Amino acid sequence: MNYKIIIAYDGSRYDGWQKQGNTDNTIQGKLEAVLSSVCGESIEINGAGRTDAGVHSEGQCANFRSSSPLSPAAIMEKANSYLPEDIAIISAEEAPERFHARLNAKGKTYRYSLRLGAAPDVFRRKYQLRIEEKLDIDAMKKAAKALCGEHDYKAFCSLKKYKKSTVRNVESIDFLLNGDNLDIYFRGDGFLYNMVRILTGTLIEVGTGKLAHTEMESILRSLDRSKAGFTAPAKGLCLINVEY
Amino acid sequence: MNYKIIIAYDGSRYDGWQKQGNTDNTIQGKLEAVLSSVCGESIEINGAGRTDAGVHSEGQCANFRSSSPLSPAAIMEKANSYLPEDIAIISAEEAPERFHARLNAKGKTYRYSLRLGAAPDVFRRKYQLRIEEKLDIDAMKKAAKALCGEHDYKAFCSLKKYKKSTVRNVESIDFLLNGDNLDIYFRGDGFLYNMVRILTGTLIEVGTGKLAHTEMESILRSLDRSKAGFTAPAKGLCLINVEY
Repeated sequence: MNYKIIIAYDGSRYDGWQKQGNTDNTIQGKLEAVLSSVCGESIEINGAGRTDAGVHSEGQCANFRSSSPLSPAAIMEKANSYLPEDIAIISAEEAPERFHARLNAKGKTYRYSLRLGAAPDVFRRKYQLRIEEKLDIDAMKKAAKALCGEHDYKAFCSLKKYKKSTVRNVESIDFLLNGDNLDIYFRGDGFLYNMVRILTGTLIEVGTGKLAHTEMESILRSLDRSKAGFTAPAKGLCLINVEY
Repeated sequence: MNYKIIIAYDGSRYDGWQKQGNTDNTIQGKLEAVLSSVCGESIEINGAGRTDAGVHSEGQCANFRSSSPLSPAAIMEKANSYLPEDIAIISAEEAPERFHARLNAKGKTYRYSLRLGAAPDVFRRKYQLRIEEKLDIDAMKKAAKALCGEHDYKAFCSLKKYKKSTVRNVESIDFLLNGDNLDIYFRGDGFLYNMVRILTGTLIEVGTGKLAHTEMESILRSLDRSKAGFTAPAKGLCLINVEY
């Protein structure tokens, strides 16, 4: 059976999603070890997005094939009882035989969470970047609008050499302000390495006045990483949803 | 000036609210140390509720007197920059000269958070008790109704010898189910030592069928701690609000 699972994780103490050789401390590695034990055979999973070290997920999607007789629900329940408490399978179902979580992904939504105001949120402190300076959110919204669309986002990518195209389509950047919590949702067909974090850092620099919202087009056109804003830290970023 | 402050804290790594002698690792101790440094004089604070080790707060209230020239907002901002990231002053104002956070408290609201279903919430795992058994929430609501009102709650108190009255008025016990998150709000004029946690443990035992909801009155009448349910762990409990 081809199993499709949705995974939530607090990425704080992991070296990211993607499995690494011997000293493995990754989400994929932990999941494969537990699923192999539950299914009684070696399991390899395909994740939709390779989240970086310290990045979280509420909706990572993955698939794997197994000849286990267990139902998706039974695998989920057993796996959750063995997984560390900061990783959980939150849904499991049978997928069409040819479904591949990464290759079939049509879009992704990420959220970057900021904490404004004079006090941190003690319960979300590990999942928010605190900004003590005043932010001009209207200017940030204007900049965000200029950053949407189909563009070459090379200026918003940390990798200097990118073999494939750096053109992506960012469908929307939406702001949700709830008290002192500012969540920014990025929806697009795909994102380059560190792209959401650099977009966020750039928007923050617009908010604090270090960059003008009118500069976004020239930053995009420059294809030059040094023109965009800083790379916002991993802890504020969360993969929310993968679309198929 | 008499300063009134509201404090949020993640109680996970502290020995509770109330200051203890030499090896102090309490919320009150941390706050007094920082406030003394900010105000430039020795500060003692009165907290409304003495939360236990591991219990959290979104709305603990305290007051303290200081001859500092600093405004409440300035004290809050400075204190937050020195406080550990799991303690934050979320509001500060001038209070009437005779205001005392504990003696003037008229009521308190606590929340106990349960996580139901087949998967934990990885982001709230430190603030929820996970219950994997099915709960009969209707039976829990009936039991909760019987537990409200003015009663002698001695059966719901961990201290065997209580010098003062063990009569309290529990005004309401409300259930808020949001997906797999079940939050139970307890509002009353005051609560005995461990009372909310024992009420919660009792309600959980009703939910799992270990106790019948019809037994609540006889448990109250027994005044016998051994008749009530278990003491639910501290991590699910949060002081939400203090009324004056």
